Amino acid sequence: MASLLVLPLVLLFAVPPVLADEGMWTLDNLPVKQLQERYNFAPTTDWLTKARLASVRFNDGGSGAFVSSNGLVITNHHVALGQLQKMSTDKKDYVKEGFFARRPAEEQPCPDLELNVLFSTQDVTARVLAAIDAKASDAVQNAQRKAEISRIEKESFDQTKLRSDVVELYNGGQYQLYRYKKYTDVRLVMAAEVQAAFYGGDYDNFVFPRHDLDMAFFRVYEDDKPVKSPAYFKWSRSGAKDGELVFVSGHPGHTDRLMTVRQLEFERDYDLPTRLKKFALRRAALNDYSARGPEPARRARNKIFGLENSFKAYTGELAGLQGPMLMAAKTSAEAALRTATTATPALASAVASWDRLAAVQEKLVARFKDLQYRNASDSRLAAIAERIVRYVAEVEKPNDKRYEEFRDSNLDSLRFQLFSPAPIYPDLEEHMLALDLKESLSELGSDHPYIKAALGGKDPLSVAHALVSSTGLGDPELRRKLVAGGRKAVAVSTDPLIVWARGLDPLYRELRTWREDEIESVEALEGNRLAKARFAILGTSTYPDATFTLRLSYGKVAGYEEGTTKVPGRTTFYGLYDRAASFGNQQPFDLSPLEAERKLDVDLATPIDFITTNDIIGGNSGSPVFNRDGEYVGLIFDGNIPGLALRFAYSEERARAVAVHSSGILEGLRKIYRMGSLADELTAP
Amino acid sequence: MASLLVLPLVLLFAVPPVLADEGMWTLDNLPVKQLQERYNFAPTTDWLTKARLASVRFNDGGSGAFVSSNGLVITNHHVALGQLQKMSTDKKDYVKEGFFARRPAEEQPCPDLELNVLFSTQDVTARVLAAIDAKASDAVQNAQRKAEISRIEKESFDQTKLRSDVVELYNGGQYQLYRYKKYTDVRLVMAAEVQAAFYGGDYDNFVFPRHDLDMAFFRVYEDDKPVKSPAYFKWSRSGAKDGELVFVSGHPGHTDRLMTVRQLEFERDYDLPTRLKKFALRRAALNDYSARGPEPARRARNKIFGLENSFKAYTGELAGLQGPMLMAAKTSAEAALRTATTATPALASAVASWDRLAAVQEKLVARFKDLQYRNASDSRLAAIAERIVRYVAEVEKPNDKRYEEFRDSNLDSLRFQLFSPAPIYPDLEEHMLALDLKESLSELGSDHPYIKAALGGKDPLSVAHALVSSTGLGDPELRRKLVAGGRKAVAVSTDPLIVWARGLDPLYRELRTWREDEIESVEALEGNRLAKARFAILGTSTYPDATFTLRLSYGKVAGYEEGTTKVPGRTTFYGLYDRAASFGNQQPFDLSPLEAERKLDVDLATPIDFITTNDIIGGNSGSPVFNRDGEYVGLIFDGNIPGLALRFAYSEERARAVAVHSSGILEGLRKIYRMGSLADELTAP
Repeated sequence: MASLLVLPLVLLFAVPPVLADEGMWTLDNLPVKQLQERYNFAPTTDWLTKARLASVRFNDGGSGAFVSSNGLVITNHHVALGQLQKMSTDKKDYVKEGFFARRPAEEQPCPDLELNVLFSTQDVTARVLAAIDAKASDAVQNAQRKAEISRIEKESFDQTKLRSDVVELYNGGQYQLYRYKKYTDVRLVMAAEVQAAFYGGDYDNFVFPRHDLDMAFFRVYEDDKPVKSPAYFKWSRSGAKDGELVFVSGHPGHTDRLMTVRQLEFERDYDLPTRLKKFALRRAALNDYSARGPEPARRARNKIFGLENSFKAYTGELAGLQGPMLMAAKTSAEAALRTATTATPALASAVASWDRLAAVQEKLVARFKDLQYRNASDSRLAAIAERIVRYVAEVEKPNDKRYEEFRDSNLDSLRFQLFSPAPIYPDLEEHMLALDLKESLSELGSDHPYIKAALGGKDPLSVAHALVSSTGLGDPELRRKLVAGGRKAVAVSTDPLIVWARGLDPLYRELRTWREDEIESVEALEGNRLAKARFAILGTSTYPDATFTLRLSYGKVAGYEEGTTKVPGRTTFYGLYDRAASFGNQQPFDLSPLEAERKLDVDLATPIDFITTNDIIGGNSGSPVFNRDGEYVGLIFDGNIPGLALRFAYSEERARAVAVHSSGILEGLRKIYRMGSLADELTAP
Repeated sequence: MASLLVLPLVLLFAVPPVLADEGMWTLDNLPVKQLQERYNFAPTTDWLTKARLASVRFNDGGSGAFVSSNGLVITNHHVALGQLQKMSTDKKDYVKEGFFARRPAEEQPCPDLELNVLFSTQDVTARVLAAIDAKASDAVQNAQRKAEISRIEKESFDQTKLRSDVVELYNGGQYQLYRYKKYTDVRLVMAAEVQAAFYGGDYDNFVFPRHDLDMAFFRVYEDDKPVKSPAYFKWSRSGAKDGELVFVSGHPGHTDRLMTVRQLEFERDYDLPTRLKKFALRRAALNDYSARGPEPARRARNKIFGLENSFKAYTGELAGLQGPMLMAAKTSAEAALRTATTATPALASAVASWDRLAAVQEKLVARFKDLQYRNASDSRLAAIAERIVRYVAEVEKPNDKRYEEFRDSNLDSLRFQLFSPAPIYPDLEEHMLALDLKESLSELGSDHPYIKAALGGKDPLSVAHALVSSTGLGDPELRRKLVAGGRKAVAVSTDPLIVWARGLDPLYRELRTWREDEIESVEALEGNRLAKARFAILGTSTYPDATFTLRLSYGKVAGYEEGTTKVPGRTTFYGLYDRAASFGNQQPFDLSPLEAERKLDVDLATPIDFITTNDIIGGNSGSPVFNRDGEYVGLIFDGNIPGLALRFAYSEERARAVAVHSSGILEGLRKIYRMGSLADELTAP
């Protein structure tokens, strides 16, 4: 029996259950035992309800929180950046100068910002699984699953008028119906200057020590009046303290903690290197465009910001996968899990899932260039055209047969985006469309069906010019008309971009069908089988991969050792002024105009940023950090470099979440931005 | 002829001549062409003479500079630390509290500090080489070389009364007679508090950004009056500026830039790992001792400081050798040099030198434990006893037959050390002697002749206790009497430590003779042959390894990229107060009492520390940094971590010299230490 004795020991070390401060937990399944043992904390139902209702999802990709009873929402400047960019003009640059509404009347409506608050959740796993015929083919099972999800969402929406999303958790181990209250009248209250929010620029991005006031405030309105917040975080008097237990609630976008080694290798060898290559090309193209003058530079700014951010993030992820530790740990954990799965009769059939997932990776490699280079999404106009062509075709289908994004429950949000009056810059559109087309031509070759359809034998530059200069889609009114006119209107439209998008649509549909049937459905099913095996062995004390839905993570405020020295748990305004002076106030280490002007007003020992061991990832930007009393102590805005590999695995050693300190926010509001009334609203008793 | 065409190209890349800001140059051989091309600078004779005469060697292992006409010398606090420690008592702790002479009468004599200023140099290569019979054995040649050097030194001393050292440069390619003016009445003027000087402690050691006021001032006296400085550096008004050309003069102790790959491997595999092991043991022993109370902690402090410093330095050196770049570069450079040497008929005989040096390494490995573990030098009393026993025997020999350190020209300095009244702490002595003996026993085993002689069958603890508790050598008077009584007095002495040292002396002499004849003489001769081959191929535009003699390096003030961000070229007082506040003023990141008390007086934007590309190493501590106008702009006190591998190879990418900024020194003197008159003396027109 020696071999049976050895096995559990191997498993104990090689497939560890969740340890330390790991985990992006759903609110119905917190690691109660760990919280109790490690931090002597037990959340109450009220505490959890407040955390849920005070947490806000920014539907364009971030998080935030209610911080007063009057609908005041705080988030990051970089989450607000898209709106700020759309609200700015060549006359008034809110990104550069900041935005400061000192009276309610000055609060300015955002063009297309949607906020969501999670009002309820409901386990619908049984219903979804009951709709699937386990004996059918993978593709059929996948279709059945999607259809049932779509029916559930529609029923819920019809019944409650709340945004209703069925969320797949644990790789398909669980399905939850999430109902959101949706807010679309959102007004800008305050935004820091970009130089204060993003101090140190791309150099200091993902770096700690850090000195950013990455903050913006919005207010939610209904019926032209500020809403009463569903719940809100009270502002802490002292802010985050070293070693203190803190929580982060928010909407982490995507993790891949359960990927198999073979899937990770695909990331390492294909996906991430290709993304980096594409980003480098786009960054160069946008820099070229920016160099045309100050107004082009302003227009391209948030795209460049996003690209540089992603570039550094993917570089960190790739470094994690290429480093010696991560893959070795994943490989031994997978080997142990495989051994244990094989040894457990009830799970043995799951062993084949590894091989099926490996086969999927082979297929992905075979059509990798098709997947990567058959799109023109860097041009907003082209993306709108393709979306309209698809929209009118999809909505004619029964709800449960449509592409996910065209289901009834998503149409409101989709139209909100599609008809947005946010400005479109034809020169930038043309520049980026030309880039997409050139790149596709170079990667796919002139004989490729996509290239033939997209270029029709012409060169990318003239195609891009012809399309952008002659389309009418810059006007939201035309988009409305086409959508209202439905399939017929789109079919007879002579708008060149619509004509062009019609030509590409069949190719898109073929590729998407292939991807959904051959790749996604297999990954979902086999991933689900492996996830089940993993649960059977590790028990239920685990958490699902991130899905841009509400999660809670816990951790503590803590510095770490780096090289031979220590990185402190926080920085102060002293450090901001040191870094500027040390670099002779040269870009990107120059102070913002107001930071410079009001330096003498600032209490320099006030903390500005701090770090915690919380498990977070992209999508958590803007998340509240709060203490055991539910008080607001900080504003998540970044992770550090060692934290970039958190997409694949958690580590407490040096990976850290980076936040603006609540005391720094107040000091910035009162002393630098002279927004005393806003600070008073935050600290109102 | 293709192979001949290829060769020079290979050499060009693989055996590069000196590049960039590399080099610790002797003042008679500056890289004039590089300085002209890279910095448009040509030093004049006056400029060089001033740099030489204003540069001071601290004979206990550091550098310094005259900075006023009245004999005022600046150096690092950590160079002054030995004297500060010896001047402190359990009542008055100058290390902790600092030292501030506000009037001349308060300037306090140092117990045993010797300063040297290089007054002249003379090439004596021809005379040394003429004394060597090239046909004799290696051992005989070595003896002839040493004898001639000793004659030259004695002649010079008798003639000039100046300290006269023959310095071997370029691995024996050149011999220079250096004559020093020697100062022994040196008085302490000012020393910062150790917490200000060594802010961040061992954590921040070798780290940048850095925030140290690592400074101390002495004044040189003769005939009880301040001397007129031979020359001095005028204080710069603005201090070091980003990108500026700067020079460092000083006394780099030791580099091994010309080591063969085989020699580097010995360092990597034997020497450095053993040192680190020994240091770890000593650190632990000293920490144990410190834990006995505040006074033991005070007594052990500078030893612990030195150990931690060396530990981190050797760790960095070892990391450099273990890393992928350094050894690969050295290996390919050596292969190319070997190829070129083989191909050049006049040099071909030198090829065998690599093999002979490799054979030496084998011998070193064979007696490695003997060399490492047959000493008890951690006890100052034991070292004094051994030194006295050796002294009386050596001085009876003709000058040129003595061990180097007992030659006439060195006796003054030696006696100055031997008879120093600096305090000796018996409990610490016993603790460290016991450590030495325990370690030797454990490494060599009880049957080893050294162990038999040192322990006589007893255990290390009781031997150490017996020796330390009963010796009279703590009293300098007994040392004087023994030395004055000569061989006879020592032979009949019943002082237990003298008796013990007499027993060990023959073993010491056997090992030293073996080392000098079998190792050092071969390394000198073969190293010399290789050096000559290297010169023949690379030309004369190179510099000798460091020898704790005066050198000049050049470079510029420059930050660098680290990870994904930038490290600035300097720090400011803002940064000091940020780091303290960020760590909640916890040790070792707490402010010194006076930094804390006088914070509001300080102009926080004043630079405190800065970094340069100058090529420096241990021994350069306290070196002046000066600009092209010969103005004092900074005070070298450290290198950064990437700079630790500079012992083996220069790199401009991230290796940096770290200095206190001249403006930071003034700000510290005026605002924190209220030494206005000292600051006035520095800035006097």
